[in-house]
Amino acid sequence: MADPITILGIAGSLRKESWNKGALRAAQALCPEGVKIEIYDIGALPLFNQDEEKNPTAAVSHFKKAIRAADAILFASPEYNYGIPGVLKNAIDVASRPYGDSAWNGKPCAIMSAAASMGGGIRAQYQLRQSFVFLNLDAVIQPEVAIPQAMQRFDAQGNLTDDTSRKLIAQLLQNLVAKIRLARHQPVKAAA
Amino acid sequence: MADPITILGIAGSLRKESWNKGALRAAQALCPEGVKIEIYDIGALPLFNQDEEKNPTAAVSHFKKAIRAADAILFASPEYNYGIPGVLKNAIDVASRPYGDSAWNGKPCAIMSAAASMGGGIRAQYQLRQSFVFLNLDAVIQPEVAIPQAMQRFDAQGNLTDDTSRKLIAQLLQNLVAKIRLARHQPVKAAA
Amino acid sequence: MADPITILGIAGSLRKESWNKGALRAAQALCPEGVKIEIYDIGALPLFNQDEEKNPTAAVSHFKKAIRAADAILFASPEYNYGIPGVLKNAIDVASRPYGDSAWNGKPCAIMSAAASMGGGIRAQYQLRQSFVFLNLDAVIQPEVAIPQAMQRFDAQGNLTDDTSRKLIAQLLQNLVAKIRLARHQPVKAAA
Amino acid sequence: MADPITILGIAGSLRKESWNKGALRAAQALCPEGVKIEIYDIGALPLFNQDEEKNPTAAVSHFKKAIRAADAILFASPEYNYGIPGVLKNAIDVASRPYGDSAWNGKPCAIMSAAASMGGGIRAQYQLRQSFVFLNLDAVIQPEVAIPQAMQRFDAQGNLTDDTSRKLIAQLLQNLVAKIRLARHQPVKAAA
Repeated sequence: MADPITILGIAGSLRKESWNKGALRAAQALCPEGVKIEIYDIGALPLFNQDEEKNPTAAVSHFKKAIRAADAILFASPEYNYGIPGVLKNAIDVASRPYGDSAWNGKPCAIMSAAASMGGGIRAQYQLRQSFVFLNLDAVIQPEVAIPQAMQRFDAQGNLTDDTSRKLIAQLLQNLVAKIRLARHQPVKAAA
Repeated sequence: MADPITILGIAGSLRKESWNKGALRAAQALCPEGVKIEIYDIGALPLFNQDEEKNPTAAVSHFKKAIRAADAILFASPEYNYGIPGVLKNAIDVASRPYGDSAWNGKPCAIMSAAASMGGGIRAQYQLRQSFVFLNLDAVIQPEVAIPQAMQRFDAQGNLTDDTSRKLIAQLLQNLVAKIRLARHQPVKAAA
Repeated sequence: MADPITILGIAGSLRKESWNKGALRAAQALCPEGVKIEIYDIGALPLFNQDEEKNPTAAVSHFKKAIRAADAILFASPEYNYGIPGVLKNAIDVASRPYGDSAWNGKPCAIMSAAASMGGGIRAQYQLRQSFVFLNLDAVIQPEVAIPQAMQRFDAQGNLTDDTSRKLIAQLLQNLVAKIRLARHQPVKAAA
Repeated sequence: MADPITILGIAGSLRKESWNKGALRAAQALCPEGVKIEIYDIGALPLFNQDEEKNPTAAVSHFKKAIRAADAILFASPEYNYGIPGVLKNAIDVASRPYGDSAWNGKPCAIMSAAASMGGGIRAQYQLRQSFVFLNLDAVIQPEVAIPQAMQRFDAQGNLTDDTSRKLIAQLLQNLVAKIRLARHQPVKAAA
């Protein structure tokens, strides 16, 4: 039996009925056996100020501990003004400091995005990938889960209602789990 | 006589002795006659939450008013994790909403960056420019003011000590002022 | 009467029935009075080799002359492998050299793209804009003309059949012409 | 004994004394036991034209065969006009087509760059990484080998003379080999 896997899910929107929170809940329901996703709320983190980085608030310490305890990270991000939401980038910045004490280093991860636009948030994804080069976050390459025209694919409570997106999310999770198991030298089950 | 010009200076770092705040102070000292730069502190802005965007805090309303009152914006940004600092992107996001009520629309602007790295923050600049396409911010193209290896070019209080950088900043300001005057159909004085 | 304007149209695809060539033909038909678009074929340019840059082929010299003779450039590009087509980037590289003799310097320009994908070629557009910072090409900011799912919006000969796209192209041209006239200090007519 | 590994080295410059060709030669000299790098010249490839993609020239077929025969790809690229050289992107485009017959799919790879600028070609590297998402090329994350101010780090024949760069290249190769062996489930030797 393979060891259990815990994935930390982080949504880039603070909105209560956020599509991206909904995408994380959909991912929870699609988890393979032995895998669970814990959703983390980044709304309590302070704006990053380097002067304070050696005296982190309780929220910052708790966040970094949760990242370190997880086997992998699943980001679900909207696109704000053609880029990563400031609120998500701030969470990434906060947990990356002080220098030499980043919580992200070496983690496997995967990205999803959902947005009102035709592109489905893809511009935010490439900016995330650029930051991952510095952070040494090892992201699943494909499939790209970018859910376009989200108001047609989520209900009013932000629940995903679209089967195509669900299949892509299931595949993304499978590839993320394969990446984790490969690093552990555990056998990976073929896709069903 | 040309009308006076007010530029809003926004630093992407909250650190007290920030190099980028120092770059803004250097720009203040280099302002052509009739031009002044007011530095705005983005540290009091809340994390953007779309649920709250129609009930902005006083800090948000004040920030949007300051942007609208200015003739142009001067961004001075570090680079965090190969991208725009979350704290700066959050300020941009906050002032861009609600939809249809962005404070940025149509503003002339210019970008500077200072960073410890060889690249001098350039990665943050391209991400800013990508957001400007959506925000309809009209950025000066050249010169690119990206101050590399900043610890050699600023003193311990964050004051710029490098003449090459100062010349680039003076040229950037001149080009920003020319852009503003051109839009007003006012004559632009040639560079000295 | 305002002086006439000549725009050089450059398609990023060599395909005979290219959608992007079709977008340029559509732009020709939408030109305001006094403005014409000449379409340039970049298929005869050699692969750039710095060893040869001081002995340009006739095709290279001809291309650079055409760029210099034009008042502005209109790029129409597909997206290949999430980026600028090599064939288009090569044309840009060829005409940018030798150092100090770039044909692009200071030109106003605008970008269109058409692609099979939902994004409509937008990834190629941001890479173009990044090169424009170095090349000092002054691009229209909005509207973004990115024609998605192009097989539904062009006929089999590559002719644009979509009215929404046509309106966006007309607006893009108007903004490009305004940029040229502003630089010449000529009055710009309001949009009809 | 681990199976031997063949890496295909591709330089993004056609210049005879190219720094990036020199970086590939340096990599050849730094190869771990059982690993060899074959350098491929992309100068004979035609400009990509989709109309011809089903009738590839001999040069195109040969290139695709060489990619497929290799265990991994090592790109060494200059930065032209703040982006990937057209000549390199064209090679990537040519070998990626026709749709469904890309030679790149699933290959492990690594990136180096050398450039005259302070950034060392880094802007080209992020554009390559963006294309790799589409191409399903699995790139080593770190170290980033971006050799700045190259005229100080290569001799007149384009040979690398800088020890710091050599150490980074050795580490990059080691990480690339580890990626290949991990995919084969072969033990990876620790770094010396």
